[in-house]
Amino acid sequence: MGNFLKKKNNRRKFLKKTALLSTAAAISTFIPQTLSAKKTYNWKMVTTWPKNFPGLGTGAEIFANMINEASGGRINITVFGSGEIVPAFEAMDAVSSGAIEMGHGGPYYWKGKVAAAQYLSAIPFGLTPQEQNSWFEKGGGQKLADQIYKKMGCKFFVCGNTGPQMGGWFNKKINTIEDFKGLKMRIPGLGGEVIKAAGGTVVNLHGGELLTSIQSGAIDALEWVGPYNDLAFGIYKAGKYYYYPGWHEPGGVLDCFINLKKWNSLPTDLKKIIEISSKAATQKITNEMIAGNNLALQTLLKKHNVNLKPFPDEVLKKLAVLSEKVMSKLTSSDNLSKKVYQSIINFRNASIKRSEISEKKFLDSRLKYVNYEK
Amino acid sequence: MGNFLKKKNNRRKFLKKTALLSTAAAISTFIPQTLSAKKTYNWKMVTTWPKNFPGLGTGAEIFANMINEASGGRINITVFGSGEIVPAFEAMDAVSSGAIEMGHGGPYYWKGKVAAAQYLSAIPFGLTPQEQNSWFEKGGGQKLADQIYKKMGCKFFVCGNTGPQMGGWFNKKINTIEDFKGLKMRIPGLGGEVIKAAGGTVVNLHGGELLTSIQSGAIDALEWVGPYNDLAFGIYKAGKYYYYPGWHEPGGVLDCFINLKKWNSLPTDLKKIIEISSKAATQKITNEMIAGNNLALQTLLKKHNVNLKPFPDEVLKKLAVLSEKVMSKLTSSDNLSKKVYQSIINFRNASIKRSEISEKKFLDSRLKYVNYEK
Repeated sequence: MGNFLKKKNNRRKFLKKTALLSTAAAISTFIPQTLSAKKTYNWKMVTTWPKNFPGLGTGAEIFANMINEASGGRINITVFGSGEIVPAFEAMDAVSSGAIEMGHGGPYYWKGKVAAAQYLSAIPFGLTPQEQNSWFEKGGGQKLADQIYKKMGCKFFVCGNTGPQMGGWFNKKINTIEDFKGLKMRIPGLGGEVIKAAGGTVVNLHGGELLTSIQSGAIDALEWVGPYNDLAFGIYKAGKYYYYPGWHEPGGVLDCFINLKKWNSLPTDLKKIIEISSKAATQKITNEMIAGNNLALQTLLKKHNVNLKPFPDEVLKKLAVLSEKVMSKLTSSDNLSKKVYQSIINFRNASIKRSEISEKKFLDSRLKYVNYEK
Repeated sequence: MGNFLKKKNNRRKFLKKTALLSTAAAISTFIPQTLSAKKTYNWKMVTTWPKNFPGLGTGAEIFANMINEASGGRINITVFGSGEIVPAFEAMDAVSSGAIEMGHGGPYYWKGKVAAAQYLSAIPFGLTPQEQNSWFEKGGGQKLADQIYKKMGCKFFVCGNTGPQMGGWFNKKINTIEDFKGLKMRIPGLGGEVIKAAGGTVVNLHGGELLTSIQSGAIDALEWVGPYNDLAFGIYKAGKYYYYPGWHEPGGVLDCFINLKKWNSLPTDLKKIIEISSKAATQKITNEMIAGNNLALQTLLKKHNVNLKPFPDEVLKKLAVLSEKVMSKLTSSDNLSKKVYQSIINFRNASIKRSEISEKKFLDSRLKYVNYEK
């Protein structure tokens, strides 16, 4: 202790002298280059996406770079694609255990650990991406998500959104709800549960297997994300009809999960940098998805002559009824799932009228009355 | 120089000793509390909003707090409401001159300085808030905005969005486009230009004058923002019909402007903190607007029995045609305005089909087929 005090005195003397230096710049460049090197956090981020996969993998890189730059290098995060350190779906185990500091993926991947996690990604006929963001912040979602991720030893942040997804690629026409009977479809998550309830067979496939599976006839239909990501996988080469809307995932939340002990070890300013970077990354990812989908849709329609089709009204109506039944049943046996689901439904109820008179009526008018190059 | 080197040697000795300290924590708490105090930037932010005005004034506070916290106090921004240092519309002059470091407002307030600025806020039948964000980042908007704000000696960032606005409060029914003839309406910006072209008289009023003006019959109609902000001003007490959609401002960009010299004087990490805080604040403000509008709309409808009305299709169709004519004429005499307008129109053209099959069709289906408490 005496020794420490002596050092403290030296420090005081030094500081006094340093303060006399005529240029403030000399002081400010001095700190990050020397002392701050002592408190660098070299962190790894594992992801569930192929390295630099459009929008999702690139989103993780954008997020990490923001943190690195805004912290002046005090946190250095290195991003790893799926399989580089651990396979995609082992990302949570690696972070839970503390072997890896943080991860980036989607909440429904962790439903095997905490069932309630899947409702954070999206619910069929649920919320738009902006409504999801608002629910997390203003509707109680962040608190519920932190409760869920704490069970996995992690801190949770929303970190991106896929935007509204598409209904999927089908090799036969969907005219009635009966057409789902016997249909073999790749559709994960809660949407898959609804397709099962409609009589379909749900198959789980990784992104890389999608094209060959629909080409070979091993599956009759699949949904992946939307134009931007679907074009990247070349699914248009085999998928006959491209259906909309994405009733099952009107938005798709991406998650950032940080080992809780590592999170708690950070000083307040670095915590804040991560928090605001997750929000900024969410916006950057959404921006990229919109611009990417704009271009990719035009490419699919004009260059690849994709056959775009709306689900018939009658089919959407029955899918909505079925979705509610399936969700009620699924959540009935788990209190936390029920709580999360009900909270989202409350926010949706409050959103429907507002979205009708604002976004929906505006988009209707713009589509009908604006002259635009088709 | 010799003197400086001597100090440098002292510093080396000090650092060597300090490095021997057994706890890294002692070092990391030592820096922000002592040395970092030397390089603090004490900045003022003037705004065009009343202090803590819902969503807008509070948005400026949120933005400043993010920067203060994420920088560990290296930047300390104090926010001032309109009139506290300078009146609302003199905020840009104060920042341009360098008297004040930064400001928060809306781009169209500066159209008297650079005409092209107004197109950055919104254009009639233009982009949704998310499309606006995407245009700035991926459609060339940031570059154009920086060009515009450079003429005012400032750096530009998007910093918030009002969300889709409402069509406004009217004391008479709007059945045809002829009903705008002779109508005295408070509607600023490009929407006002369209109303003028339709034969209306456009009046400019501050927020505080809105209620009394429509109550006294001095004006027949007004638009402010949307349910959340309109409720705060009590406009429902006098406005007879509440029309939708907000064809004139489907989104409303808020701006952060920073004196260019002050901006350039910042170290890279603090620049990055401001940049990501502006994106994070944009999201937080949008989140608050959605949740606030959800609740306020219910209050207006259920508690205050507001008479909500859609503009008739024929009126919207004619407003769309008129908007295009007015914008073409307005932008024809100014190259920069023309360039900005055309860039937005290109992004809109690319967005219409995508928004039709994603957001629009989803919102249609949700509204029609989901059972919800009305």
